[in-house]
Amino acid sequence: MLLLAVKAISEEDRAFLAEHDIDVVTPDTITDAQISDVVISYAWDNRIGDKILAQPDSKLKWIQTQSAGVDYLPLQILKERGIIVTNASGLKAEPIAQTVLSYILYFARGLNVYATRQHWEPFTDQYMVSELPVLVFGTGRIGQQIAAQIKGFGGTVYGVNTTGRAVPGFDEVYPITNYQEGLSKARVVVDGLPGTKDTENFFDEYFFEQVNELFLFVNIGRGTTLDQDALLAAIDDSRVRFAALDVTTPEPLPTHHPLFERPQILLTQHTSWGEHENYGRTGGLFRLFKKNVPGFVADGSLTYNVVNLDKGY
Amino acid sequence: MLLLAVKAISEEDRAFLAEHDIDVVTPDTITDAQISDVVISYAWDNRIGDKILAQPDSKLKWIQTQSAGVDYLPLQILKERGIIVTNASGLKAEPIAQTVLSYILYFARGLNVYATRQHWEPFTDQYMVSELPVLVFGTGRIGQQIAAQIKGFGGTVYGVNTTGRAVPGFDEVYPITNYQEGLSKARVVVDGLPGTKDTENFFDEYFFEQVNELFLFVNIGRGTTLDQDALLAAIDDSRVRFAALDVTTPEPLPTHHPLFERPQILLTQHTSWGEHENYGRTGGLFRLFKKNVPGFVADGSLTYNVVNLDKGY
Repeated sequence: MLLLAVKAISEEDRAFLAEHDIDVVTPDTITDAQISDVVISYAWDNRIGDKILAQPDSKLKWIQTQSAGVDYLPLQILKERGIIVTNASGLKAEPIAQTVLSYILYFARGLNVYATRQHWEPFTDQYMVSELPVLVFGTGRIGQQIAAQIKGFGGTVYGVNTTGRAVPGFDEVYPITNYQEGLSKARVVVDGLPGTKDTENFFDEYFFEQVNELFLFVNIGRGTTLDQDALLAAIDDSRVRFAALDVTTPEPLPTHHPLFERPQILLTQHTSWGEHENYGRTGGLFRLFKKNVPGFVADGSLTYNVVNLDKGY
Repeated sequence: MLLLAVKAISEEDRAFLAEHDIDVVTPDTITDAQISDVVISYAWDNRIGDKILAQPDSKLKWIQTQSAGVDYLPLQILKERGIIVTNASGLKAEPIAQTVLSYILYFARGLNVYATRQHWEPFTDQYMVSELPVLVFGTGRIGQQIAAQIKGFGGTVYGVNTTGRAVPGFDEVYPITNYQEGLSKARVVVDGLPGTKDTENFFDEYFFEQVNELFLFVNIGRGTTLDQDALLAAIDDSRVRFAALDVTTPEPLPTHHPLFERPQILLTQHTSWGEHENYGRTGGLFRLFKKNVPGFVADGSLTYNVVNLDKGY
């Protein structure tokens, strides 16, 4: 069967695929005649992906995404055609959690002040991580990794998920219908929500109205989950002291966008997953992908990281 | 006996002192006649401290400093007079270690780039803490706390101390005569040396000549341990990519000092010990101090955190 390698696959990993009778093409080497023969898309690229989906006789059965979020895929079409999506959830949990800790320490230790201060004026309104209880929206692998890192600093961490079911590592978990209880105890809010129609603009004017003196608002979920104007208003009247956003709407954000102009906002431009060895993009992705290969080759079954296309995560 | 409270002491803590027949005066309430009666200085202030030491019949026997470093005390005079100094070593280890982690994550996650970037240009040359082995000069309580935090991120941490004796939490410890072995494996160097005559300008031109591609140089020890010009030269020809300095020479640093003008240098203006609750300065200091009180009252003995006045730490 044919696999389209949108992300690079090493020689060693190609040998593994060959053992399972999987041939590899890349976007550069694929011929027009092969487009409809692609069974597996290893990572997804909308340009070539749309071409594949446009073939009436497409054999596409499995998409392995390079990301945890899958909101950029045509989920409805995939569902109708019975195409299964497995995502990269968990793969980037560690780097993203380290970025979240970098944000928290940036604020807590006053680096947000010192980063641009070019004269001697000591700023001592600093905090220990343990002095800043954190409320994380989303208790999946990224949320759990964030919780573990905060615990490593002796901190307190609450979670929010759909039902309020307990998740190891969190001091308490609240259902999304009653997140207010967690919010009242928190100094830091981390938006780790997936991008679905239910989460669109979840952090809106109403949310920020309930915020009294939030020290730090973080978004490492999806830009669509945050009403940016509501955040800007909350920053401007000091209900939120500082915000660190990895994701925004739109991306790229135009120069002179208000988010760029507020000194109380740090933007990391959708790179919270970064690692030097690129673990999150190539080697690590394949290690996750290959666990599903034997089952898929045997009987078309996929076991790990399967996305619920109705929920969108 | 009389105690001079240079730092505030709470009502509850005064009651504890009263039980031990210790009377409390403050720099505001002390009378001229009482100056020579001071037996204990709780925290040290050079102005009033010098007055006390100038009394020929001074009863001063014990100085409890508010800091780990004691280089601002007249150590020679104290030694001659048999005055014992206990320091606040360990008290600020946690906040200082959190600041060191904030520096490492600031560099590792690319915040040093994003802090001032006001246009969309994703920077992805990021690292995990585990990709940046750290060499800490000084394996006392601050060094050990730094090591513990780095371990919490799955990182590697080497230490340097006088003899190379092993210290729990470090992957390996090198004697200061052979720090080069640790340096060759490290991407981050943390200067946590005390300010003594042996450590003056330890990090000099010769040190930086041995540095090839150090990612991050941190100073949370004493400004006197670093030849700042040597660091600036190493920054300017890219042997050191980034530096985060909590301590400098002099303090305050004048505006337009070259350290302020390099975008590759972060200055936190001697506040790495900061906590919101001021734990490190008042309440926490007393908790440490009071452990020595019963023994001192009974027979003048001091057990905890006694400074070696010859070594200066």
